Amino acid sequence: MDLYSQRGVSAQKEDVHLAIQKLDKGLYENAFCKICPDFIAGDDSWVNIMHADGAGTKSILAYLYWKETGDISVWKGIAQDAVAMNLDDLLCAGIYDNFLFSSTIDRNKKLIPGEVLEQIINGTQDFFDELKKMGIHIHYLGGETADVGDVVRTIAVNGTMAVRWPKNKIITNEKIKEGNVIVGFASDGKASFETAYNSGIGSNGLTNARHDMLQKYYSEKYPETYEPSLNQEVVYVGKYKLNDELNTVSRNEIPAPGLTIGKLILSPTRTYVPLMKILLEEYFDKINGAVHCSGGGQTKCMKYLPKPLKIVKNNLFEPPLIFKLIQENSGVADKEMYQVFNMGHRLEIFTDEISAAKMIAIAGQLNIAAKIIGRAEESGKKELHLKVGEKWLVY
Amino acid sequence: MDLYSQRGVSAQKEDVHLAIQKLDKGLYENAFCKICPDFIAGDDSWVNIMHADGAGTKSILAYLYWKETGDISVWKGIAQDAVAMNLDDLLCAGIYDNFLFSSTIDRNKKLIPGEVLEQIINGTQDFFDELKKMGIHIHYLGGETADVGDVVRTIAVNGTMAVRWPKNKIITNEKIKEGNVIVGFASDGKASFETAYNSGIGSNGLTNARHDMLQKYYSEKYPETYEPSLNQEVVYVGKYKLNDELNTVSRNEIPAPGLTIGKLILSPTRTYVPLMKILLEEYFDKINGAVHCSGGGQTKCMKYLPKPLKIVKNNLFEPPLIFKLIQENSGVADKEMYQVFNMGHRLEIFTDEISAAKMIAIAGQLNIAAKIIGRAEESGKKELHLKVGEKWLVY
Repeated sequence: MDLYSQRGVSAQKEDVHLAIQKLDKGLYENAFCKICPDFIAGDDSWVNIMHADGAGTKSILAYLYWKETGDISVWKGIAQDAVAMNLDDLLCAGIYDNFLFSSTIDRNKKLIPGEVLEQIINGTQDFFDELKKMGIHIHYLGGETADVGDVVRTIAVNGTMAVRWPKNKIITNEKIKEGNVIVGFASDGKASFETAYNSGIGSNGLTNARHDMLQKYYSEKYPETYEPSLNQEVVYVGKYKLNDELNTVSRNEIPAPGLTIGKLILSPTRTYVPLMKILLEEYFDKINGAVHCSGGGQTKCMKYLPKPLKIVKNNLFEPPLIFKLIQENSGVADKEMYQVFNMGHRLEIFTDEISAAKMIAIAGQLNIAAKIIGRAEESGKKELHLKVGEKWLVY
Repeated sequence: MDLYSQRGVSAQKEDVHLAIQKLDKGLYENAFCKICPDFIAGDDSWVNIMHADGAGTKSILAYLYWKETGDISVWKGIAQDAVAMNLDDLLCAGIYDNFLFSSTIDRNKKLIPGEVLEQIINGTQDFFDELKKMGIHIHYLGGETADVGDVVRTIAVNGTMAVRWPKNKIITNEKIKEGNVIVGFASDGKASFETAYNSGIGSNGLTNARHDMLQKYYSEKYPETYEPSLNQEVVYVGKYKLNDELNTVSRNEIPAPGLTIGKLILSPTRTYVPLMKILLEEYFDKINGAVHCSGGGQTKCMKYLPKPLKIVKNNLFEPPLIFKLIQENSGVADKEMYQVFNMGHRLEIFTDEISAAKMIAIAGQLNIAAKIIGRAEESGKKELHLKVGEKWLVY
């Protein structure tokens, strides 16, 4: 049994997919989000989408950081995580403006006081205010905060978005085909719209990252941060404490001064919306498909192919520091790393080579590294080949 | 410290209200739900609402029942709870059709297998199919199921709805005034659209109900069902097991044959939508206000008054059996019971006496007991007087 399964998480979520198989699949079965008719306003040329996601177990890292340092502002990052995970899924369906948002927060009141809720809720509005300055409108319509300490150990921060969008401006992924190149947009670095270095971690794989990176110290001091039946061999088995400074623990090049393990792993999920707004406004017709490399990492794209294709990713980014550290600590094989973490780019677009060059240039203006990381080739089956170092990983 | 606080739940949610005080309040500050402009379609004569709620700790009862009896279908009731808690809030803003729905489910995969997810997700669709036969349309647009065992002990089942509605058909509660009578619609019984006796419990106060009703047996056998730091003096301190038959444990009249404590407490939240669809279609202009007596119970109405008024409820329903049993077990005073549980009616409408009689008659046709339970009187302040037996409770 792999580490991930032992910890009660599944990157592929097989049984969840089984559970939802009887539900209607929407208008376009390969689209990144479920696209529905315009139930809400009854116009055939528009569609409706509702989408839910959250910060997952990243909230536990915020909890540990807050308890250890007293810095309550760390919760603002969790607010951003819950929003960006929704937003960036919707971007991949072609939607980049005029979102409705509602929060769903479940907390254990014994451990999470109102001040934390304030940080999350006001942090959500602050994030929307920042995006508004870039012409992206998210309306905060409300939400529910429930005191359910018998259900939740610490806190679960989720969000749901609702949108209405012109049907002819949706990315359905149906145009993905042989000959397309795949542009990867880096998950790490400091984009022009970010105020600090982003590690690229996003909000996926955090259960593993936390246990693999952090010391047993946290197991003993904070038993409220993990399922008690877990074998201690998979609980907080790393080398680090949250306030360890990178320059004292890593031989790797440090991407920004003053970084700690805590800041690195809690780096709020980058949203690509400022970039996608431009790409969708200028190159919509050239975007054959778009994938948010969230749960499933670099294998995520395989769920959205409209037909048998061989996906070859032979020019992936060098993994950002965070992923190197996770792998150094866990000893997990590359094959698992690439299906749990994004490993360098969290957004990819299928397009032609000429458009790719233009998109890469626009990303550069926003200080987001981008390049052609691979291509789609003709094949009799759906297959994925990742080149990692000199090796090929085949899925 | 009252029992409720010791268990880490607050009927009044004071610190949650503090946390959201900086957020925009919507177009009508006394409305039961936050009403926003029609961001999604840009029509001045329409409004948008998003609303989130869930089954809360009722999911723990389903978990215990399923573990003890093997009856996995009990999870379908939790699906109904998560939907009805949203739906009935929206009814009180005047909305009764054409809802979009999205699920948010957080589970501990170690304890909750895919089969449980199937029951919840398919149970949600089944409930929508039933409502559709009555002319009420809820579109299931999708959702997120996350494996977050380090955050969630068992499972949290939440839902979010999005609606668009004509602005001139919204109940804002602004018309509530002195002289209005209050019609209460029973939470218990067997409505014409229900297939079994409904205890009236809804999905509020379940943390208390569970601990007050059930035996210490559950504390020892299922430590995953409560916050471990709780004083054992407030954990599963009741007399009952879930499969206890009512006729062996209660001197009260049994409302339906074969009822067990488990069935009583897990009774799925009644939705009033079949009733409210008729009332809103026929008597919209006569509905001065509407309140879903959820968290806050019989005191809930006080949050939605447009001005100082004395609310007198002097003709409340006899509390249904479930509430009598909870109080017998807990010894909690009436004053707290009435602000935690609905105690007999979960929906109330402010109207005039003539319209009240018509609404009561319509409820009767659906086999929902209804009567004038009180009135609004002129006052210099907002005050609430409940007559319980021969006593008056003043809030």
